[in-house]
Amino acid sequence: MNFLSDTTAPAHPAILDALGRANEGFAPSYGADPVSARVKAQLCELFETDLDVVFTTSGTASNALALSVLCPPDAMVLCHDEAHIHRDERGAPEFFTKGGKLLPLHGDHAKISPDSLADALKQWPNDFVHATPPAVLSLSQLNESGCAYSLDELDALIRPAKAHELHIHMDGARFSNALATLGCSPAEMTWKAGVDILSLGATKNGAMASEAVLLFPDMQDRLPRLLANQKRAGLMLPKMRYVSAQMGAWLEDELWLDLARKANAAAKRLSDGLAALEGAELVHPTHGNEVFIRLEDSLAARLRDAGAGFYSWPDGSARFVASWCTTEADISAVLEAAR
Amino acid sequence: MNFLSDTTAPAHPAILDALGRANEGFAPSYGADPVSARVKAQLCELFETDLDVVFTTSGTASNALALSVLCPPDAMVLCHDEAHIHRDERGAPEFFTKGGKLLPLHGDHAKISPDSLADALKQWPNDFVHATPPAVLSLSQLNESGCAYSLDELDALIRPAKAHELHIHMDGARFSNALATLGCSPAEMTWKAGVDILSLGATKNGAMASEAVLLFPDMQDRLPRLLANQKRAGLMLPKMRYVSAQMGAWLEDELWLDLARKANAAAKRLSDGLAALEGAELVHPTHGNEVFIRLEDSLAARLRDAGAGFYSWPDGSARFVASWCTTEADISAVLEAAR
Amino acid sequence: MNFLSDTTAPAHPAILDALGRANEGFAPSYGADPVSARVKAQLCELFETDLDVVFTTSGTASNALALSVLCPPDAMVLCHDEAHIHRDERGAPEFFTKGGKLLPLHGDHAKISPDSLADALKQWPNDFVHATPPAVLSLSQLNESGCAYSLDELDALIRPAKAHELHIHMDGARFSNALATLGCSPAEMTWKAGVDILSLGATKNGAMASEAVLLFPDMQDRLPRLLANQKRAGLMLPKMRYVSAQMGAWLEDELWLDLARKANAAAKRLSDGLAALEGAELVHPTHGNEVFIRLEDSLAARLRDAGAGFYSWPDGSARFVASWCTTEADISAVLEAAR
Amino acid sequence: MNFLSDTTAPAHPAILDALGRANEGFAPSYGADPVSARVKAQLCELFETDLDVVFTTSGTASNALALSVLCPPDAMVLCHDEAHIHRDERGAPEFFTKGGKLLPLHGDHAKISPDSLADALKQWPNDFVHATPPAVLSLSQLNESGCAYSLDELDALIRPAKAHELHIHMDGARFSNALATLGCSPAEMTWKAGVDILSLGATKNGAMASEAVLLFPDMQDRLPRLLANQKRAGLMLPKMRYVSAQMGAWLEDELWLDLARKANAAAKRLSDGLAALEGAELVHPTHGNEVFIRLEDSLAARLRDAGAGFYSWPDGSARFVASWCTTEADISAVLEAAR
Repeated sequence: MNFLSDTTAPAHPAILDALGRANEGFAPSYGADPVSARVKAQLCELFETDLDVVFTTSGTASNALALSVLCPPDAMVLCHDEAHIHRDERGAPEFFTKGGKLLPLHGDHAKISPDSLADALKQWPNDFVHATPPAVLSLSQLNESGCAYSLDELDALIRPAKAHELHIHMDGARFSNALATLGCSPAEMTWKAGVDILSLGATKNGAMASEAVLLFPDMQDRLPRLLANQKRAGLMLPKMRYVSAQMGAWLEDELWLDLARKANAAAKRLSDGLAALEGAELVHPTHGNEVFIRLEDSLAARLRDAGAGFYSWPDGSARFVASWCTTEADISAVLEAAR
Repeated sequence: MNFLSDTTAPAHPAILDALGRANEGFAPSYGADPVSARVKAQLCELFETDLDVVFTTSGTASNALALSVLCPPDAMVLCHDEAHIHRDERGAPEFFTKGGKLLPLHGDHAKISPDSLADALKQWPNDFVHATPPAVLSLSQLNESGCAYSLDELDALIRPAKAHELHIHMDGARFSNALATLGCSPAEMTWKAGVDILSLGATKNGAMASEAVLLFPDMQDRLPRLLANQKRAGLMLPKMRYVSAQMGAWLEDELWLDLARKANAAAKRLSDGLAALEGAELVHPTHGNEVFIRLEDSLAARLRDAGAGFYSWPDGSARFVASWCTTEADISAVLEAAR
Repeated sequence: MNFLSDTTAPAHPAILDALGRANEGFAPSYGADPVSARVKAQLCELFETDLDVVFTTSGTASNALALSVLCPPDAMVLCHDEAHIHRDERGAPEFFTKGGKLLPLHGDHAKISPDSLADALKQWPNDFVHATPPAVLSLSQLNESGCAYSLDELDALIRPAKAHELHIHMDGARFSNALATLGCSPAEMTWKAGVDILSLGATKNGAMASEAVLLFPDMQDRLPRLLANQKRAGLMLPKMRYVSAQMGAWLEDELWLDLARKANAAAKRLSDGLAALEGAELVHPTHGNEVFIRLEDSLAARLRDAGAGFYSWPDGSARFVASWCTTEADISAVLEAAR
Repeated sequence: MNFLSDTTAPAHPAILDALGRANEGFAPSYGADPVSARVKAQLCELFETDLDVVFTTSGTASNALALSVLCPPDAMVLCHDEAHIHRDERGAPEFFTKGGKLLPLHGDHAKISPDSLADALKQWPNDFVHATPPAVLSLSQLNESGCAYSLDELDALIRPAKAHELHIHMDGARFSNALATLGCSPAEMTWKAGVDILSLGATKNGAMASEAVLLFPDMQDRLPRLLANQKRAGLMLPKMRYVSAQMGAWLEDELWLDLARKANAAAKRLSDGLAALEGAELVHPTHGNEVFIRLEDSLAARLRDAGAGFYSWPDGSARFVASWCTTEADISAVLEAAR
């Protein structure tokens, strides 16, 4: 009954198998191997477009690399006040942009509100030498409160941002969970919606360590700079095939969506079950694999006593994260303990 | 007959097995897992001292992180002109130190000569506000010409550097190869010789992606800063157990030394065999798993025609790198083709 | 009738005289000259303490240098959302701290409210490797809305900040204007209140280009790093005597206070006169030499037609800045035009 | 008899007069004033081309700003091992380029030899992701050994550098001294020779603090970035008219050349006089206002006893710097003491 984080879960067996298959004979270093080329082709097909990809081993690395080619050192990234890049990456974006700013915006459920964006765009001009110009809008999908932006909500932010010549970054550490919820295509949730660069994460949903930065067509001319930054940050692994192989297996035969659906369903069942109880109140809607719920002390204690692992969130709620390997029995046990 | 680089080789089966064993159930994230703790204990035992360790997935990451806690932004790292940190890391040390300088020193066979070091220490004062002060001496062991510093040679550099209050970094991307050659203990080649921080690499000698930064006792107070920098650089993997598990298996039962001895022996046989031929001349002594040899064009062509993969080095020589999986048959085939 | 900014005003004649006096014969470079030493002694006497000083030629330089020795690259400065360091320095603090963050706090009249500070200190821990720790509280005195913190208000912010081990920076670009208003001593408004480093500005109040960073006793061990950063930023002028000489003249015989009192009085008369009119409403109290007032369009137009220069502020108000050379006649003319 | 440095000299009276004239009434801030516009026009005329200019108050600032728009963070500046940017600016170029490298080249008399340049261009490719690409060639004119490159010597370096797509920076801290020696036009020594950006210094030759970064036509599109970097570095002075006014006076009626000729002539007389003595040997030819000469200990002592101020240079020689205010009597007194 470990709901601490999806990063505490083990890897799916298919990932390990893929490592075994990749471990045959010699292969070119630093990403020039055939496995990586194959996974790039998979991504092009799944996202229905030409694209470039750089594989990494952490979501923070992906986000920071993406921002490093989108935000000049004297410019600014707009993001939600709760954004992982703002709160949980120890300043990685500031480091990789070499001094860029992050401007925290606001809105319920960790979704940037169009008003907050409009206000920032009005207050921060992009042609005044004294003021830091906004250069990027970064959106988390699934976001830090476990919510997904609808396609309309994405449009209501991306359209005005693009009108001010901002680029759009999507932090997709839990991209597959959002995709499973929205039921749209990967293309619809990204480049067709105006996203320029996507951080795509497999680690939280079944991989050991496999993430990717996807450059959609308008950004492909930034690949050389991205590669230089990847090398310069120690993120260009000598034997890259073992990173891309994980992602290949994860994308194959819809495994990524199957695992996301499973985790989402577990979270939904947990969310519904807990929210129905006295002394429990959902803080955010449950769109993916995370449940944020305010629990009376006695209820929280009862759950912990029963062996349920979850975090006390800074806002006073409890966060439960379901993963690809959360079982029906786990959920039942928690709900039973709760009643 | 692939001698392009030890990073083109696959991983040893024991590494894959270790990943399987580590992939059981839930585990704390970001390096707080029991696997990582166990490997730290292994390292303490092998290096005969208390130490702190941060696991990474590339040698460039290890070097850059190590230098990030040794060299202030307005100071300088002394290294050989051929050093990997100077030539092959796209400025990672400059990035991680946030603007530190690297001063190239000289000496045969990629070994810094004591005279070159003395000259630099004389020319660059450490108390003049206009000049960048030397803060670190970085030594590669095995070095970029495939040579190992003897313990006496290390002492002849480390002693004067320490007298000028420099810290000592060792780039041990091929540490096990040097260790196998010198036949000394890990402790003798590092902290007993005055090394403050070691970049220890397993990737080139049998792992998929497993490297470590070792802080010897005098440096342990720098761990918090090192961890912050690791996080900030996107190098703190969520599921770190899979990185440390590789190193654990590699260190177990002397596997690291066995593989290094095997690669070194293969390189030595190749080196001796080629050097005995007309039209071939060794450029550097073969202390580890790398052979640098000048080949007449016809000889080089013959080898390539026979399917031998090797790089033309900038100095005009050919570089052959043996790895843990280079076979006797590979060497025989090359030598046969050469004759 | 130029009220655009105090930086559009010329220098006071005493400043030019001081330059003439400093221009005698040879003098050591880079701040080691006797003029600079004498001005340092003046500052020690006026601030009633030992201190170290570095002279600069812009307020942005002073602020950025101060923060460069207070905020590590992976840490954070807390400041008001309207702070000059956040809004008007094109990311200078981020550049000089090499990637530090600025967290915007809130409160009326550009004064940080104790609640906003408390909230930030609660939300941002200083011992969690994933989160950027707060390291500095920066306060502008006079602030960006032309208001002065009272000594009690300073205490209500500095005390909790220090309890969380933050250092305190004061942006004193208009320090003399605040001092004239509060009527306290320089010491009471700075180190006695807990301020660690002060950016002291003379440029806006009569100098050509003369600013200083003052390190109060607890910070004096940071002088070598501050000097290195000053040199490294191109801010260590070869002939520093001409910068310090300006400040010396400015501090002599209470000239700084006389000029501040004059500018403040002009602003107060303008503020009172305008606020008494139909169609005008003060936005902030007038504590120093700046007036922020909302003007009906017809009134604003009338003033501009009469030749009054002032800026339309982003919040919709009009900003009038009085300077040391604003005359009674200027004020009368504006008020006459307004009526 | 102060020959320590041209930065120890006072300012020429014309400079002080110009400050007085500039100190009339209100003027727009941050360089938008009419004085600055007028000086820009002077520069265009003197350099016979359209150009953009940013005024600064130190040579280090000019060099660092220039390099900040020429060298990306992951690229490299080629310069002489003795270059001021490498030896004497505490890593300012590394700071402003955000981690760029400086590669020291070699050649007699602080002039880069064409062979050394060719070797570097061969060793450091500009299209290999692992290696830092050369982006800029920086040349000091007058250089750090007091020597001027002839126009042919400039061409022999600039031509191959441009063929490798490098940009050319000229450090002209003593530009006027070199110009006076070569007797060519400012245009011939800069953009007609292929120089992209010039750091032009007046401070060492009669100003208080006045330097400029000149962007020649091909670089004018980099002005917005240069201005942003200037602001961000605290180098955009609020009352810029006082900096540009100095340069205006300095350029007027050939004052810059008159002063340079005077200083050069003084140095030449000193150089010839000393070199004719027993126990004295010129180390470098005297092309400008600096004399580097090896003196027997007794001779050096005799000079010091007579009150001559000069520096002992790291290479064992004595450095004498003449300035615009060095008198015939000073030189005579030194030579008399020497005999």
